[in-house]
Amino acid sequence: MYLADQTWPELSDYVAEESLAVVPLGSTEQHGPHLPLSTDHTIAEGLAREATDRTDFLCTPTVNVGVSVHHKQFHGTMWADAPEFRDYVESFSRNLAYHGIDRIVFVNAHGGNQTHLREVGRRLREDEVAYAVEWMWDESIPQLVNDLFEHNGPHGGPKETAMMMHLDPENVKTDELEAARDGGLVEWSNEEASVHGARDFYDSIDNTDNGVLGDQTDATPEKGARLFDAASDQLVQLLEWLDDRRFEDLMAKPHVEPKPGSRRER
Amino acid sequence: MYLADQTWPELSDYVAEESLAVVPLGSTEQHGPHLPLSTDHTIAEGLAREATDRTDFLCTPTVNVGVSVHHKQFHGTMWADAPEFRDYVESFSRNLAYHGIDRIVFVNAHGGNQTHLREVGRRLREDEVAYAVEWMWDESIPQLVNDLFEHNGPHGGPKETAMMMHLDPENVKTDELEAARDGGLVEWSNEEASVHGARDFYDSIDNTDNGVLGDQTDATPEKGARLFDAASDQLVQLLEWLDDRRFEDLMAKPHVEPKPGSRRER
Amino acid sequence: MYLADQTWPELSDYVAEESLAVVPLGSTEQHGPHLPLSTDHTIAEGLAREATDRTDFLCTPTVNVGVSVHHKQFHGTMWADAPEFRDYVESFSRNLAYHGIDRIVFVNAHGGNQTHLREVGRRLREDEVAYAVEWMWDESIPQLVNDLFEHNGPHGGPKETAMMMHLDPENVKTDELEAARDGGLVEWSNEEASVHGARDFYDSIDNTDNGVLGDQTDATPEKGARLFDAASDQLVQLLEWLDDRRFEDLMAKPHVEPKPGSRRER
Amino acid sequence: MYLADQTWPELSDYVAEESLAVVPLGSTEQHGPHLPLSTDHTIAEGLAREATDRTDFLCTPTVNVGVSVHHKQFHGTMWADAPEFRDYVESFSRNLAYHGIDRIVFVNAHGGNQTHLREVGRRLREDEVAYAVEWMWDESIPQLVNDLFEHNGPHGGPKETAMMMHLDPENVKTDELEAARDGGLVEWSNEEASVHGARDFYDSIDNTDNGVLGDQTDATPEKGARLFDAASDQLVQLLEWLDDRRFEDLMAKPHVEPKPGSRRER
Amino acid sequence: MYLADQTWPELSDYVAEESLAVVPLGSTEQHGPHLPLSTDHTIAEGLAREATDRTDFLCTPTVNVGVSVHHKQFHGTMWADAPEFRDYVESFSRNLAYHGIDRIVFVNAHGGNQTHLREVGRRLREDEVAYAVEWMWDESIPQLVNDLFEHNGPHGGPKETAMMMHLDPENVKTDELEAARDGGLVEWSNEEASVHGARDFYDSIDNTDNGVLGDQTDATPEKGARLFDAASDQLVQLLEWLDDRRFEDLMAKPHVEPKPGSRRER
Amino acid sequence: MYLADQTWPELSDYVAEESLAVVPLGSTEQHGPHLPLSTDHTIAEGLAREATDRTDFLCTPTVNVGVSVHHKQFHGTMWADAPEFRDYVESFSRNLAYHGIDRIVFVNAHGGNQTHLREVGRRLREDEVAYAVEWMWDESIPQLVNDLFEHNGPHGGPKETAMMMHLDPENVKTDELEAARDGGLVEWSNEEASVHGARDFYDSIDNTDNGVLGDQTDATPEKGARLFDAASDQLVQLLEWLDDRRFEDLMAKPHVEPKPGSRRER
Repeated sequence: MYLADQTWPELSDYVAEESLAVVPLGSTEQHGPHLPLSTDHTIAEGLAREATDRTDFLCTPTVNVGVSVHHKQFHGTMWADAPEFRDYVESFSRNLAYHGIDRIVFVNAHGGNQTHLREVGRRLREDEVAYAVEWMWDESIPQLVNDLFEHNGPHGGPKETAMMMHLDPENVKTDELEAARDGGLVEWSNEEASVHGARDFYDSIDNTDNGVLGDQTDATPEKGARLFDAASDQLVQLLEWLDDRRFEDLMAKPHVEPKPGSRRER
Repeated sequence: MYLADQTWPELSDYVAEESLAVVPLGSTEQHGPHLPLSTDHTIAEGLAREATDRTDFLCTPTVNVGVSVHHKQFHGTMWADAPEFRDYVESFSRNLAYHGIDRIVFVNAHGGNQTHLREVGRRLREDEVAYAVEWMWDESIPQLVNDLFEHNGPHGGPKETAMMMHLDPENVKTDELEAARDGGLVEWSNEEASVHGARDFYDSIDNTDNGVLGDQTDATPEKGARLFDAASDQLVQLLEWLDDRRFEDLMAKPHVEPKPGSRRER
Repeated sequence: MYLADQTWPELSDYVAEESLAVVPLGSTEQHGPHLPLSTDHTIAEGLAREATDRTDFLCTPTVNVGVSVHHKQFHGTMWADAPEFRDYVESFSRNLAYHGIDRIVFVNAHGGNQTHLREVGRRLREDEVAYAVEWMWDESIPQLVNDLFEHNGPHGGPKETAMMMHLDPENVKTDELEAARDGGLVEWSNEEASVHGARDFYDSIDNTDNGVLGDQTDATPEKGARLFDAASDQLVQLLEWLDDRRFEDLMAKPHVEPKPGSRRER
Repeated sequence: MYLADQTWPELSDYVAEESLAVVPLGSTEQHGPHLPLSTDHTIAEGLAREATDRTDFLCTPTVNVGVSVHHKQFHGTMWADAPEFRDYVESFSRNLAYHGIDRIVFVNAHGGNQTHLREVGRRLREDEVAYAVEWMWDESIPQLVNDLFEHNGPHGGPKETAMMMHLDPENVKTDELEAARDGGLVEWSNEEASVHGARDFYDSIDNTDNGVLGDQTDATPEKGARLFDAASDQLVQLLEWLDDRRFEDLMAKPHVEPKPGSRRER
Repeated sequence: MYLADQTWPELSDYVAEESLAVVPLGSTEQHGPHLPLSTDHTIAEGLAREATDRTDFLCTPTVNVGVSVHHKQFHGTMWADAPEFRDYVESFSRNLAYHGIDRIVFVNAHGGNQTHLREVGRRLREDEVAYAVEWMWDESIPQLVNDLFEHNGPHGGPKETAMMMHLDPENVKTDELEAARDGGLVEWSNEEASVHGARDFYDSIDNTDNGVLGDQTDATPEKGARLFDAASDQLVQLLEWLDDRRFEDLMAKPHVEPKPGSRRER
Repeated sequence: MYLADQTWPELSDYVAEESLAVVPLGSTEQHGPHLPLSTDHTIAEGLAREATDRTDFLCTPTVNVGVSVHHKQFHGTMWADAPEFRDYVESFSRNLAYHGIDRIVFVNAHGGNQTHLREVGRRLREDEVAYAVEWMWDESIPQLVNDLFEHNGPHGGPKETAMMMHLDPENVKTDELEAARDGGLVEWSNEEASVHGARDFYDSIDNTDNGVLGDQTDATPEKGARLFDAASDQLVQLLEWLDDRRFEDLMAKPHVEPKPGSRRER
């Protein structure tokens, strides 16, 4: 159920009976010569809507601008600085608790948001406001991603290309796939991004000229459909798993024994 | 031109030649029994996209969650607290300057965002980063709004209802218009919202049971189309006016004469 | 009763029995060639002291420097930036609760402080610390203001001039009234301050050369006395109204039915 | 010259020619059974106005509420928390630079403000905005204070009592002087306030029942007049000394030799 | 060269000629029944001192308390919250620039600090204050770690145990190695830490009863010595690599062509 | 007992039975030509470890970098800005409460940290999290310091020199003692640091060329040993005194009578 399309009376049952919300978050940032800047928020929204349509859990509107400063050199990349992004997401997430929401799934399609969403999740949990988890679509189906693509590329590669062919084909430039591959970096290894163990790169332009990695020509709409279905399945299962938990079991475990002060005499 | 649908190379000319961006902002909040919670962000996005399509200025994705705590009692209203909202908007607006944007129109459809967007605009201008103005659609066509509706209602009234009938008819519950009117407050005056000159109300529920004001039965899709066209016209003219200005002329005027320290001897 | 003139034992009864405080806030900013920079804080303090003298409610000292950046181009205007102003006022207001104060009237005579005081008021109310309202003197007697002056001018106009003639005649330059009128803007309309619906002006110097609006020659001490008495009456009534309320009735209403989680099974 | 009593054109010469501002700051806090809560801000304002009247330097309005949490247990004590106080004072002080002010004397009469004003002063100096010094009146005339009183008491004692007898006799309860002495702590030593070298007390109530120290019966208006004159003399001399300095000489000295990077080859 | 053991004149040559500083950071947190809470800061300090002794680059004192909230349930774990940790590290790192330091290696031995140190590094680079990289010792020698241990365990496992046997044998409880292994989790996989792709665990206690992972019985002092030497070698090479760079080449690359505004006419 | 050398199970008894922690804090800053930059944190750590070894109270690792901006002109001085220092110390101190710590002694050897540690202590006490006191070693033994040295010097003088001769003789340059004395300021008075009552100096370089005060040639290791023993004795007594208190007795006293609202009718 998409929250924004409801009137407030239509949400009565959900508010009375349920406690879970799905929040899609992406970015608006360069994705090479073949994909639109919307890529990450389109994917996040697509998956969040699909999984909540299937399950009738609540889906909020999408946060379209995330932490993308590492793509700033490319035309049009938008970004909020990390502290402001975290605080904005924390603020509206925390306020969802007023309507009884105590568990949240951040459906995320931008790697640059991950640590920040986890930090927000920790703050909400420490205050016992909500249990929030960050879910990154491709991390839910690593095997399938590996099976489908030889060089899947962490950014703007065939996995994202295929997803966009499935979700928003009009905005994929299929005649730029070869250029994307040839102007970017096909084989990517963590070693290339580090010097004697230190990650020395800060911006995507440090590694590629056109901003993308992997072999984009390996993408097809059919592969996109498979990815989308498989990831949606995983998300549905996550929502159901989360919905089944008791709130107490989602909160932090207590201090180990002996408890602080338990044998204090004063 | 919608930024998020472009690839980064497609934005080359705009970045090289232009300096204006349009940012739609709304809210996700209760709009009575007949309108979806999306109302404000749907209207802001609709107008921003229309005016930028006509002129080819750049439109960014929409900020869907704003400062709506005054509607919190109604199911599903989302909100960010004011400081976090301001800081998030300021952060990504400020970062647009990296791509040469030095003038921004915040296309806004939520009254609760107004003072905050103006505060953000002032910060950007004081640092000489950008000149940003807040534009609230109905304030651009006050005469037409008055002509079309006897009781237009500042929130969830016939002007917003008509706009949504035009922009997103599927999500307007036309069979709830009478209930909206009868369960809300048809005639609204600023006096009712104040006690001996002090605005004593903080939340919309203080004034209405169902959250809305005005006579919703007066709305029609045709009136919505007229409002949409007229407001779009105003926005187009604003964009052209702003584009014509020199940056220096948009910045703060200098200190009056005599200039500080101008006759100091030391 | 003026708090600062009491010894702490003299406040015993008030602290034990009462719960209301009046806080005057103004600004120190240009008011044209005829009025001193103190104008706003002199008026706020005058009214606050009068109404609390009549009623024996508690009046605190005055905050003399407010949010006046929009007058900065004129010699001597002082201002705190908006976040720091809000936080300072919030901090000492919140601390009043330690002495049992749970309702506060911000007696304000500077338009630039209004949204900020309301934001502070909301924060205090949301934490259920206190119910604070912003009271702007001229908004309590709109009819009388209109009756007395043809062109009352929102800043440095005849209404403020008359008030200062009544409260601090020594510091009013009566031989500058014509210059004030002729060097400023007599007729002011909101339309002049906007372009196609967007408020395009940020500073008072954008509209006037000498910083003031309205027809100052229309001011007399007698009119000032009438304004002062009428506004004081309104303030007294506000204080009594507020004192009569139960704290619970001043706090936010609860979430509408059904209550969040009320039918949750888990 | 008192800033707030001027019109903006009257400040023209000062803004063009001068660069110094005097800012009085005090507190609104308990001063025993005999002195009003205004004591500290009345003294600060009195001295600042006197010294600027004599010299024609600029005096701003007074900050009446400071950092007084350590007196909170006594009825009516007001306070801002330290970070908010610092930020508010820093904000308006920083903004004075827009009018060419590059040196500020914080005329202070409340010990609890001292470290905070020095921290603000450091921030302003590090950014090379202004050179601001904190001036605490009794620290300018330690010998006279010692000569006049056997037990001068750091808070609410005879030195403050005498000053108030001189500045605001109406609000001094002379028939409470003996009670003040007998209910408070006459002899005060730093040792009493510490345990094995750690200052263990946080609040004035930890040391005295009525909040004051010293022998108040030793105060007379004549002693107050002498203190006032002597401290005013010191302040006048400070203002003249400060006015004589070159701005560069007030800023931080450079890094010692050799300068960082001066022999770097890269 | 260890900064803290020098007098300021002894640092003259370094300040004049060099621009690199090494900052060790660790944590004070549980490391199972066999390792002291110092483990992470001991390792970081040991490596930083070794590599700077070999090369004569500057090493600062160690930050001993980091972001360890995920170990809080175990007795004695200390932690700073993430925003405060970031801001403290940023502050003193930024201030190193006053002495000409424009490149910093954060020698880190605590996984929980990584993202925060990278965020600090980004802020320093964006302001063009310094180029700072985070270096995590075991990430510099992944092959050796894998070769030496079958189950190396990311926390409190044999690699940390071996390092501590080499660096601080007195504080390693060798008779607890089996208990450490048997009471913890020997085989660790990322899958166990996630549910359908979402990392669902927040605290180490969620996965292990005694707080540690891997097979600690596989650790020997000899292996520790090899790890220490190999990682020191890597760090030395990193320092030399970094020292060889030009500052400009360490800063962010420019915006891609065409440059923003390059073809603007206005 | 030194926290960092324990395994978590070894802390079980302490966590269950005790409630006191000792936190050493110093600085890394210039101490003249004869003492290392470590001086303050070496002294703080030395005393904290000695007193906790004698008593078996818990000692945490040391905070090595403090608020030392006033020594910045001298090579190698490190510093965190005051707000970041306060927030970092507050954060980890507050988190100690999770393990039952409700009283903390900040063992401090740097004057520049004092007001900040007291501010942190106040915040912790106001939230009733912990009672924290700042203890500065030389303030615990003022008589002995005066007896041992004619010109003890507040910074880098003989008292600190003697302590370092006792604690870390290798890093004291005994052949520089005369140079230290002759290049610095032997006799220091508060009067020299103020102009007409205003403390006009901000940096140590304003008063001395080499950064130090007092007569360093008066220092001996034997005097250092006496200082160390005497201060340790004081600290031990402070810990025992603090341990003996009830938590309630360490918290702020209540509001004086009559209690706020106690006679309110509403």
